[in-house]
Amino acid sequence: MKGNTYDTKDTIFALATPWGSSALAVIRVSGHGCIAMLEQIFSRPAALSKSPSHTLVHGMLLDASTKKPLDEVVLAVFLDGRGYTGEASVEISCHGSLAGIEAIFRALKEVGMRPAAPGEFTFRAFMHGRMDLTQAEAVMEVVSSQSQLAHSLALGRLEGNLFSLIEEIKQQVLQVMSLVEVQLDYAEDEIAEDVDFPFAAVERANQRIETLLSTYATGKLYGEGAKVVLAGATNAGKSTLFNLLLKEDRSIVSDIHGTTRDFIESKTVLDGIPIRLYDTAGLRESIDVVEQEGMRRTHRLLEEADLILLLLDGTEHDEQSIDLHGDLISDPRCITVWNKTDLSSRAPRAGSFPLSAKRGEGFKALRGEMLKRLRQESQRPDGQDVVIESARQYNELIRAREALKKVLELAHLAVPLDIIAVEMGEALDALGSLTGEVASSDILEKIFSGFCVGK
Amino acid sequence: MKGNTYDTKDTIFALATPWGSSALAVIRVSGHGCIAMLEQIFSRPAALSKSPSHTLVHGMLLDASTKKPLDEVVLAVFLDGRGYTGEASVEISCHGSLAGIEAIFRALKEVGMRPAAPGEFTFRAFMHGRMDLTQAEAVMEVVSSQSQLAHSLALGRLEGNLFSLIEEIKQQVLQVMSLVEVQLDYAEDEIAEDVDFPFAAVERANQRIETLLSTYATGKLYGEGAKVVLAGATNAGKSTLFNLLLKEDRSIVSDIHGTTRDFIESKTVLDGIPIRLYDTAGLRESIDVVEQEGMRRTHRLLEEADLILLLLDGTEHDEQSIDLHGDLISDPRCITVWNKTDLSSRAPRAGSFPLSAKRGEGFKALRGEMLKRLRQESQRPDGQDVVIESARQYNELIRAREALKKVLELAHLAVPLDIIAVEMGEALDALGSLTGEVASSDILEKIFSGFCVGK
Repeated sequence: MKGNTYDTKDTIFALATPWGSSALAVIRVSGHGCIAMLEQIFSRPAALSKSPSHTLVHGMLLDASTKKPLDEVVLAVFLDGRGYTGEASVEISCHGSLAGIEAIFRALKEVGMRPAAPGEFTFRAFMHGRMDLTQAEAVMEVVSSQSQLAHSLALGRLEGNLFSLIEEIKQQVLQVMSLVEVQLDYAEDEIAEDVDFPFAAVERANQRIETLLSTYATGKLYGEGAKVVLAGATNAGKSTLFNLLLKEDRSIVSDIHGTTRDFIESKTVLDGIPIRLYDTAGLRESIDVVEQEGMRRTHRLLEEADLILLLLDGTEHDEQSIDLHGDLISDPRCITVWNKTDLSSRAPRAGSFPLSAKRGEGFKALRGEMLKRLRQESQRPDGQDVVIESARQYNELIRAREALKKVLELAHLAVPLDIIAVEMGEALDALGSLTGEVASSDILEKIFSGFCVGK
Repeated sequence: MKGNTYDTKDTIFALATPWGSSALAVIRVSGHGCIAMLEQIFSRPAALSKSPSHTLVHGMLLDASTKKPLDEVVLAVFLDGRGYTGEASVEISCHGSLAGIEAIFRALKEVGMRPAAPGEFTFRAFMHGRMDLTQAEAVMEVVSSQSQLAHSLALGRLEGNLFSLIEEIKQQVLQVMSLVEVQLDYAEDEIAEDVDFPFAAVERANQRIETLLSTYATGKLYGEGAKVVLAGATNAGKSTLFNLLLKEDRSIVSDIHGTTRDFIESKTVLDGIPIRLYDTAGLRESIDVVEQEGMRRTHRLLEEADLILLLLDGTEHDEQSIDLHGDLISDPRCITVWNKTDLSSRAPRAGSFPLSAKRGEGFKALRGEMLKRLRQESQRPDGQDVVIESARQYNELIRAREALKKVLELAHLAVPLDIIAVEMGEALDALGSLTGEVASSDILEKIFSGFCVGK
């Protein structure tokens, strides 16, 4: 790692709970000597210095210079090797007051600690062998999981189920590798014409990798969630549908065209799939600079969407609107919705879903179609309880699979075993990178810098 | 208390940290038998049941029926009488995942706990004699404090400095009361013409109450903060000044009239005073329904403001604007600001503060005037480190003061001592209510229901 960013010799601190007023807040502190540092600003230094691991010490944190009390706290003490990071650490439980947290931060700096970089606590846990890289990644995946299923899948990885599976695959490949190496030694003395290559073993290993790869679409859908964008003319009822999808009242609903000048983002969960839902500015010709900016943002959102709900106003002869949205209607990500069936008896446009967003009629069918579309590339995992959601893991698995495929190809062509061994090595390297057994500092930096601070 | 809301026999739980994704979250659990309940859904029930007070137990929380792991947690154990609430309690430190927290909540309900009402943990602390009522109120004041000074003043009350002061005053009054009572006994046998009434002692007690009362304006200003509203014509530069006051970029700045259709609220701190700052819709005649609603909200905000900054556009002959704002200019809460001095050399309107919100010129003088106006009713406490900020405490102190004034009046008129004793009793009752020594369940309910959940 780059020395300055993740120097494990420093003593670091960070707020581990969200930034906001609340009953409690927890500030994490970790590093050699952190307990001695805290003693300088704690009302009961002797109690702190004598406290065994995994005990709580109640007292006051003090200003470093004036010794005036900053807050009443409970310190959770973890001695070297026994806490999350694998080094001495303390979790300071203080009042959830922003002013108080800031005062404590200043005091911690004054006794020689520095603010932690994102992911730095977990980085230390990894460096001290408390977890492998798939578990470290699972920490963030657990925290950011947006549905029960995503949480449960990530928790499995945190407990090491992915690590164990990859270790098993690696053992299979290593076994093949040792067979190959034995034959390589033998081949030095005597040319073996009928090499007894263990095709089946390599194919079994590759099959397990394939199965794991096939879980990626599912992991990504449940882990990252999907972007759903509501589009359509102003006044087509987008805000009403938005609220229906959220089952709460976040967007201003009004009868005036162009109320929603900028887009509104909100989150919801649809049958276990986390959804980021966007209510956009209505598409229409506009000379208003602010509205034009809104329109540009709408177009950007539409480009990035996983699913688009295009609302047509069933009460209007919507030629102008269809002109504006012609491209969308033929977009494979688009579901066309014929809204306001409560106000009009006109036949819905062919291929569209009739809906009264106001009354909720037709919503169940629309919701079903949304789920079908979102899941078309992914199957809900049955039985398979190890699921990946990280692009890095996916890419390493692809690299391992391609190398093993090459191994099979070359073996069928009966090329010399030393050439096959190179490809076997490539597969083992990919699997080792997955668990962090081999990892460059660049890759580590990239992984941990994506964490939140305090983890 | 009303039985259902605050039944101390129940075992309760609540999230003690803010609702949001983060490294850690803490769920508080309290009540008789809470440890036995947790054992049913903890992976290491024996370790939990044997753990002494103030220790940490690491393990997995499990689903109540399937026994599948819900999250990896650390339990902080507080045995009966040793935790915040004065009863057995556990603080569950889990991953800061919303989906995980919800799953744990369900499991806690399944083993027989119920969600805590706002303030219920502190209510139990009060009921079990862990704190008096001024300390209980200080808990919320510490948590919600918005500046260092407010935090430090509230922490003093939490440590009991207000409680001690009121106890001292009460002792003074009780001493007078006992003198009066001795004389009452004596008077039964023999009429005492020259009653040696301890005027000085009553005056001393009342003086201390007066001093405490005089801190209320300060406590309120630093505790609750002030509402500052920016008003003025559209395009007068309100958003630019808003950003200058916040020193961050929250409001959309644009050259189009009427961009800020609704008001924007943000928080900042001005020399220790927490400020809620409102950037309002520009005042102008409008037929737009949405804008009219914005206008109505602006007027309501102006009514509630502690301070109004009225921005005039120094580049325009602002007659129309002054017509619209005539009432504001003469309002004692209003500071008139002559903005855009960078663009115009016109002489500022008499009594207004010249400013270039764009360049920051004139901002220091304006800031100084704002502080002067905000502090005109309050003095920063010098030496006086006990400060009140609760309206309830203020009203009880007024009641005590009025009763003691009556005592002095009656004593001067030499009315019978038993009548004076009634007023002394009233003063003691007010002081007792302050600390919660005497308090009706209605008053307790009112105090604690204003708390956040988890406290």
